[in-house]
Parts: sequence; C-alpha cells; structure tokens
Amino acid sequence: MAHQTLAVGVDLGGTTAKAGLISSTGEIIAQSKVPTLADDGPKAVVGQVVKAIEEVLSYVNGATVQGIGIGAAGIIEKEGGTVKSPPNFKNWNSVPLGDEIQQVFKMRVEVENDANVAAIAEAKFGAGKEYPDFLFVIWGTGVGGGIILDHKIYRGPHGGAGEVGHISIDYKGVQCNCGSRGCVEAYIGQRYLSARTIEGLKLHPESKILQLVGGDLSKVEPLYINQAAEAGDAFARTIFEEAGLFLGTALASVMNIMDLRVSIIGGGVSAAGKFVFDAITKATIAGVQAPLKPGIKILPAQLGNTAGILGAAGLVL
Amino acid sequence: MAHQTLAVGVDLGGTTAKAGLISSTGEIIAQSKVPTLADDGPKAVVGQVVKAIEEVLSYVNGATVQGIGIGAAGIIEKEGGTVKSPPNFKNWNSVPLGDEIQQVFKMRVEVENDANVAAIAEAKFGAGKEYPDFLFVIWGTGVGGGIILDHKIYRGPHGGAGEVGHISIDYKGVQCNCGSRGCVEAYIGQRYLSARTIEGLKLHPESKILQLVGGDLSKVEPLYINQAAEAGDAFARTIFEEAGLFLGTALASVMNIMDLRVSIIGGGVSAAGKFVFDAITKATIAGVQAPLKPGIKILPAQLGNTAGILGAAGLVL
Repeated sequence: MAHQTLAVGVDLGGTTAKAGLISSTGEIIAQSKVPTLADDGPKAVVGQVVKAIEEVLSYVNGATVQGIGIGAAGIIEKEGGTVKSPPNFKNWNSVPLGDEIQQVFKMRVEVENDANVAAIAEAKFGAGKEYPDFLFVIWGTGVGGGIILDHKIYRGPHGGAGEVGHISIDYKGVQCNCGSRGCVEAYIGQRYLSARTIEGLKLHPESKILQLVGGDLSKVEPLYINQAAEAGDAFARTIFEEAGLFLGTALASVMNIMDLRVSIIGGGVSAAGKFVFDAITKATIAGVQAPLKPGIKILPAQLGNTAGILGAAGLVL
Repeated sequence: MAHQTLAVGVDLGGTTAKAGLISSTGEIIAQSKVPTLADDGPKAVVGQVVKAIEEVLSYVNGATVQGIGIGAAGIIEKEGGTVKSPPNFKNWNSVPLGDEIQQVFKMRVEVENDANVAAIAEAKFGAGKEYPDFLFVIWGTGVGGGIILDHKIYRGPHGGAGEVGHISIDYKGVQCNCGSRGCVEAYIGQRYLSARTIEGLKLHPESKILQLVGGDLSKVEPLYINQAAEAGDAFARTIFEEAGLFLGTALASVMNIMDLRVSIIGGGVSAAGKFVFDAITKATIAGVQAPLKPGIKILPAQLGNTAGILGAAGLVL
C-alpha cells in the first residue's frame, strides 16, 4: 500500500461524526464513528473530530495522505474552513474548524457544506461519474442540492449555490419556512409530503397505506407510500405523481437556466423508489426547452450513507 | 490612434445588420448599417455582413484590430461560429457564419447569441461593470437572458444557458408556447402583458391608460401603462406590481440556485420605468434566501441599441 494515495473524509453530523480513510478510487480502507457531543460546545466537538481522524489515520500503513476533507451542515466560509451556525450545535456561532484541524494534523484541510460534499461524492465515485455536469438533489426532511459543472462543485460567488429547495413553483403558493412562497421544499419535504398524504387519506380510506401503517397515521412516511404504490394503490401513486410534478417543475427551471440535462437524487425520500423517479422524469422533460429534452436523465444517487465520508475525502483527492 | 486596440462588433438582426468599430474602453469609433436581406438566403446575408464590416474597417487608421465579434439570433455552436435556424431568415438552416467571415478578413471571429452578447456588453461597458456576477434579462416580446460569472458569460455545457423566460412560476399555470406551464415569459412578454392590461381595462374604465391610447385598445403597450402609473393611475400600478411579482419570483429562483444577487434588465418593456423596477426588487428580495437579501440589486441596462455592437466587440476584446 506504500505508493497508494489516500485522504481522510469526515462527515460531521449533529449526532455522530464519521471518518473514513479513502483511496483515490473511492475505496473505503478504514472507518470510525464517534458521538459528536454537539451539546457540549465547539471544543468538545473538535476533540471528537480529532479522535475520529486519529483512529482512521492508524491504518495509513506508509501510504501518502493528501489531506483531510470535512463535510458539515451550516454556512461554510472557505477562509479558515469556518463553520457558521450549524443547526443543533450548542454555543456554536462561527468556528474556524478547518484551521483548528489543520493545526493538529499539519496537513491540508478543506471544509464544505454537506449537500455539496454529497454532490462531490456522486461526481467522483457514484452515479455522476460519467456526467461532467449535473444537479444533485438531497431530498429528505428538507430539499437541498449541489451543482456539478465540469466535474467540479459550483459554489457560487458567495458559496451559497444549490438551494434547489427554494425554487418557487407557485408565486402565490404556500408560505415556506424561509419566508418566501411556493418553495418546492414546502411541498415535498418529508413532513409536508406525509402531511399531504395523511390529509388525502381522509378521502381515500381504501388506500393500502392505511393497512401498511396499521391505521396509525403518525407512521405515514414515503417508504409506506411507495410500498402501497408498488402494490398498485391508486391513491399512493397519485401522491408520487404530484410530488414528481412539483420536483420536476423545479428541476426543469434549473436546467433551463443552467443548461443542465442530468439530475441525481439522493436522500431519504428518494429511496422510496421507482414511481417517484418516473414521475419526476416525466415532469422534468415536460418543463425543459426542446433542445434539452432528449438528454434528460433523473438518476438515483448510489452512495447512500457513505456519501459523506467519500465526498469529504474527494475535497482533497 | 496607432497604438489603440480595436475590435469590430456586428449586430445581425432580421432587418438590419449593424457593425461598429469599438475601442477597448467601449468607445464607438465608427458605425455602419446595412439591410440584412434575410429573405434572399444565407449568401446574400453573409455578403451584407462583409459589407458592414468593410465599411467600419476603413476607419481603423493604423490601429490594431483584435478580431470580429458577431451577435445573432438562433442557436449558436462555437465550432465554426455556426448559426442555426435564426427566426425570420429564409433558407437558413445551419451556416458556419464565423468561418465564412474569418476566411474573408483573416482575423479571429467569434459568434454568440444576441442575449449573451447584450449581457457581455453590460458586463464590459454598461450597468454591470462593477459587478463580477449577475443575471442579465432582456424583457421585450419574449424574456431572454444571459448569466455573467466572474465577468465572463456562462454558456452552460451545451451553450443554452440563460433561459430565464422559461423559469416556471406556477406548476399549474398557463401554457407557454414552448409547451411547458407557467413560464414567466407567458405572463410578462410584451404581448401577454398588454393582453392582461386590455382584459383588466374592462373592469377599470376610469384608468388613465384608456385616455393615453385615445380609447384604442390595440395601442395599449408598456410605455402608456407606465405613463399612467407615473400619473398616479391605480390600475396601471397594479399591472406593474403584478408583473414585478412574476419576474421577481423567477429572478429569486435563479438567484437561490446560482447564488447571485444582481440582475440587470434591458429590453423594450423594461424601458417602461421606475414602477416596474420597484416591484421587481420587492418581489426578488421576498423570494431569496436570507443571506442574499441585503445584496439584492435590480438595475436597468445602460446601453440600449448599442449593446449589440458593443457586446459583439467584447467577444474578442
């Protein structure tokens, strides 16, 4: 292994911090996982990150380590690898995480936000390997994203690009948490999607979704909606067709403005399955300009839970 | 003038072809104007472009000419400077205009679509000089645009970027000519805007717009709507507030996805005036993510009719 080039990728979440020792071809050579201790303040968190990194570095075995990449929630400033106001981190206003980790390990450190990191992971090692340009969407509780142009992340002039969840699909639509109207996130974020489904079930007591959750509406989630859709449930299919129309409308707007043809979709809700991908594809093709239509591809992300450490390593590989 | 650096810019329209001899600071040293002869086929058109260029080249007077830039409607392929299917040009399928002009004048030739050329003009010589990144919008019969990133045009992977008119602002909205639904162009393109106004005048016979057009509804156009708005006409102001909401919603979506803060708006309708800019600005600020709000600027284009030759020269300067 002595002539192999490696990097460390860190996925800093609100609950756990994961590190991976990653080869230049995306092989995971070692992994570690520690509690983030987000309630104990920045010093404790940085200590945990150091611990997770040290653990995987013990597997280097003579290879060259090119650096450490870190993916984190919140607003990231490239200067100092500063992480600002990550949600659910106590007493964490603005911390130069990159600089602090660099001082411990004396190697190159890059910090990037988690959606961009997941986009980079798919670009380098996942569903985006063949596509130089695509829009990555992470569809879970919220709807986030990252834009890959010519195999690289497009951060935008101030590092805030990729807010696909806040594309408005209806100028007079529902109010979003962000203050704007009609944001696609306010239609298809996991909670909103489940809420729409629960509302609709009142009119569709015959739906298989009710059986799958044993009549407990609090258990309604995309997984069961998909199971019902696959079993032929008409109401469940309607829910996904509608969600596909919502997301496809937003994707088409992005593709029209940026001249993109490919979108890769990850996150918990997207795992629901084929029905939703078919619906997104149909709506996207309907919404894009004629020259784009033949090239439209809506693909599932491939890397799942490992995207965080792989993409973070990709920041320095 | 011997040590000055110049370029020729050509604005190839369906009716006239204009050429300008332009200095590196955007000074127009000489101009020419010939009929395009678009009905007579590509050979005649190329001959007219050559004539327009020859005329301005007679004013070079010993300076260095860096090349020739051409702005044209239609789809442009960088390879060969090929212009495909420009509207209103007879028997013009796909013509390597750049190569043909290069063979005549033996100097560098660049061809770009007219919306991108106008964006480049504002970036180099107009309202965008101070702004490295902005969205240029041309608002007339249709709604087109060009994206400037780090002072350069963003063409997209296949040269089709900037279709701001086909951002959907309502997933269940009106059908656009392009086949999609809710495209902002289908709400605010000049004809649509006038049609909405004419429709609304039935309910507002007191509007000053009716007096300004002498009761002739076929004369309703943005200029008169603005005159009425400036004179305090409530209905006219409503029309612009609505148009501003429509365009601002689309601009906010673009800004959220690309992390932009500035938009420069040109074209016939935008010339209407202050009311519409105020309304666009308000709607854009309401629609963008919090970190973008303080930086939002919606500015009128500065170059008007000369944008075509200035931006075309900017392709090679």
